[in-house]
Amino acid sequence: MADNLQQQLVEHIKDAHAMEANVSRMLEAMIATTKDEEIRRELEHHKEETARHKQLLAERLEAHDAEPSKVKDITAQGGAVMKGLVDLARSEKTAKNARDGFVTEHLEIATYELLERFARRAGDEATAEIAKRNRRDEEAMAQKIAANWDKFVELTIREEDLAADTERATV
Amino acid sequence: MADNLQQQLVEHIKDAHAMEANVSRMLEAMIATTKDEEIRRELEHHKEETARHKQLLAERLEAHDAEPSKVKDITAQGGAVMKGLVDLARSEKTAKNARDGFVTEHLEIATYELLERFARRAGDEATAEIAKRNRRDEEAMAQKIAANWDKFVELTIREEDLAADTERATV
Repeated sequence: MADNLQQQLVEHIKDAHAMEANVSRMLEAMIATTKDEEIRRELEHHKEETARHKQLLAERLEAHDAEPSKVKDITAQGGAVMKGLVDLARSEKTAKNARDGFVTEHLEIATYELLERFARRAGDEATAEIAKRNRRDEEAMAQKIAANWDKFVELTIREEDLAADTERATV
Repeated sequence: MADNLQQQLVEHIKDAHAMEANVSRMLEAMIATTKDEEIRRELEHHKEETARHKQLLAERLEAHDAEPSKVKDITAQGGAVMKGLVDLARSEKTAKNARDGFVTEHLEIATYELLERFARRAGDEATAEIAKRNRRDEEAMAQKIAANWDKFVELTIREEDLAADTERATV
């Protein structure tokens, strides 16, 4: 029974680690397509946080004598949701980028809510604390997105107008 | 420019409608694999809300002389995220079901945040109000999930123990 719980805990740490690796790729794609300076700075900042989260999880895996899942295995193992999120991040519309970012933050929040509890049940306080601290960063990022829906819609409408103008100019 | 905004609005209503259709399928899959009575009741209740949301959006599409996207087009048009969510819902682990439910609710919240703003910008107050009201139901559902992480972890550990016991008994 203890072995079973231990196994579940390691599986959850691996999931969280693979998730952060995917989020890092998604943030890169978003940064590459974001023109707004302020949004880009927030994304860059969150990318640094994401790298730190991933490192902390890698250390917990090491403490459990486990290895991170190979990067190529992430979409198969981590689930189609994350694959979908990364794909969608390639869309260049600001509003949809913001939506996908908001969804991703909540995937991370839920993952850490679960990891924290599995870790406590397994008596691994170090992992529980990391899950709690990482979650706070994700919550802060989710709140930043939620505070800016107006701006995202405004930017999207401008992008679309620009695209329509360009199309008219070239006809 | 007005035409362009109108077109974006209709696209957002279609997205929201397709999303609700997917969520409905996801909820069915979750209901089928949920043993806990209380959770199942919440899911059933939310399925009724989902059907109502979908109907309200269909009426707004009609008001704009537009048609819902065909169900078969949903994953192509609505994005891989939703497809992924539906696939993941087939997993029978309570904790992952809860996580996917939480993520889905936030996809819905973000979709309605955007739809409400596009509708207001396009002067379509009826759609804006529906987006706002639907969003409140999704927020309530997200809060119900968030209030029960302990229970979801508890149930998952019990499921896993049961599975391990069964495995041992049959060896």
